[in-house]
Amino acid sequence: MSERVFDVAIVGYGPAGITAGIYTARRRLTSVLFGDIPAGEVVNSGEIENWPGDRTTEGTVLADKMVQHVRDHSDMVTIVPKKITRVRKEEKLFQIEVEDKSTYQAKTVIYATGRHPRLLNIPGEKEFKNKGVSYCANCDAPLFADKTVAVIGGGDSGAEAVIMLQRIAKKVYLLHIDEKLRAEPILVDNFQQSPNVTVLTRAKTTHIFGDTFVTGLEYEDLSTGEKKSLTLDGIFVTIGAIPNTEPVSQLVPLDEQGAVVADRYGKTSVEGFFAAGDVTDTRDAQIVVAAGQACSAALSVDDYLSRNKF
Amino acid sequence: MSERVFDVAIVGYGPAGITAGIYTARRRLTSVLFGDIPAGEVVNSGEIENWPGDRTTEGTVLADKMVQHVRDHSDMVTIVPKKITRVRKEEKLFQIEVEDKSTYQAKTVIYATGRHPRLLNIPGEKEFKNKGVSYCANCDAPLFADKTVAVIGGGDSGAEAVIMLQRIAKKVYLLHIDEKLRAEPILVDNFQQSPNVTVLTRAKTTHIFGDTFVTGLEYEDLSTGEKKSLTLDGIFVTIGAIPNTEPVSQLVPLDEQGAVVADRYGKTSVEGFFAAGDVTDTRDAQIVVAAGQACSAALSVDDYLSRNKF
Repeated sequence: MSERVFDVAIVGYGPAGITAGIYTARRRLTSVLFGDIPAGEVVNSGEIENWPGDRTTEGTVLADKMVQHVRDHSDMVTIVPKKITRVRKEEKLFQIEVEDKSTYQAKTVIYATGRHPRLLNIPGEKEFKNKGVSYCANCDAPLFADKTVAVIGGGDSGAEAVIMLQRIAKKVYLLHIDEKLRAEPILVDNFQQSPNVTVLTRAKTTHIFGDTFVTGLEYEDLSTGEKKSLTLDGIFVTIGAIPNTEPVSQLVPLDEQGAVVADRYGKTSVEGFFAAGDVTDTRDAQIVVAAGQACSAALSVDDYLSRNKF
Repeated sequence: MSERVFDVAIVGYGPAGITAGIYTARRRLTSVLFGDIPAGEVVNSGEIENWPGDRTTEGTVLADKMVQHVRDHSDMVTIVPKKITRVRKEEKLFQIEVEDKSTYQAKTVIYATGRHPRLLNIPGEKEFKNKGVSYCANCDAPLFADKTVAVIGGGDSGAEAVIMLQRIAKKVYLLHIDEKLRAEPILVDNFQQSPNVTVLTRAKTTHIFGDTFVTGLEYEDLSTGEKKSLTLDGIFVTIGAIPNTEPVSQLVPLDEQGAVVADRYGKTSVEGFFAAGDVTDTRDAQIVVAAGQACSAALSVDDYLSRNKF
């Protein structure tokens, strides 16, 4: 275990963790930043049109700019490109346990680990994961050129998957469990007229099947109760996300979705433990919201350290 | 008065108003956006190093990018480049009165007018405003090449003024009323070693004097009670900012600083009236925080409109 005590451990390398690193560095606080994917989910976001000031940008381009920004503060920010397994608090210090069994110490934590995809939990899903079942359209869409695919889930990420896939695949089905798609209308506009897209609402996917690879799915038409099936080459599951709170589940109160309960300045009920971004109980999982929250969390850390002796 | 009823009136053309315009446009809501200065205070911000992803950028460059982004949504966003004088609510609709006596109607409001500089309220200040007394170092610093100037106020904006002026002016005094500067240490580091910068703490400015133009100031050394004076060519006043809430002071509850009381999603106690950015009771007057709040306010508007009939 390193003897060094950092002012703050930033857990998470997405837009929130990066913004926290930039702001704590500007406050001349030492930080250690953990995360195995530089820029986190941004790299998987395809085209981004809602980062203010960048009319249209690739997720990978915005990701590179953000990563470079925090790396330029390497005098203050130590980046450890690894996952952490647990955060504990002993007396006043936090102990951060890393997957390689090393441990780091810090006076405060900014927890910003984001979310991971929610599973359908239906037969065939686990069996065909990475064998036609994908949770990342941006990663895997190019594999389905001229194929027939289904996207399950009619929220923003489902709509974004359809937008991408309609240009790549031969045929795209969008299955949504409710009557009305939840996605932003500006997104839905993109594929509503597409001849190769079919939207199925009130469609509850019940079974994924295949042999060595996915060959189709079965769904229930909730309007009629009828069971129907589709023949497919691939399935994209986009039904939401679960906060990555496992490493802190014993440390900090979580809400019923498993998110860290934090106020607008990132403060939690654990002294010195702050949180920001999609891992918190925010309503709005947006990059600019996460970045704003992380800025506030960093300023909260600075304030906390100026009021506490270590 | 126009008969048209917009989904939302966005009051303010800074980062918050612009982000609100981008997000409401993406939700396919019609908006009218008011503001006489495109990008607001960003244009006066000199070098910006804390907008995530832009390691170092000029305020004017970031301003241009943001303004272009919202202008690209002109199918949904109508920009009225004017100040507003009042917002009223009549039955369910908001009436927005513009300085040119025109009136616009909207179902909701996102109020994001920012703040304006606080005055010293001491003798000579009004008399010599724009005659050597400035509230905007970015605007006026170049006028003081090889001159002797004072910056009053040791917060972030005061420090930023000194950083700029030390390269332009012959001599820069920084007067701060407390023992310790409030500015970010990374900013203070920039001028602490400068031979032409003198920091005076516990210095309370009491009087500005001059003839046709500023010639100096008088301050009280709070450590000794002694009155002292400085001979100067210019004075920059950077002692904070006051929320621009005059047009809504009869409509929505304000806190003791005059800021709009709003929650993390921009909601106020007035139905349909949302607020974002520096005009709210936020602790953090930062561009990225304002943008994040505005995104949330826009999503709140969308949610509100989907639940209310007009």
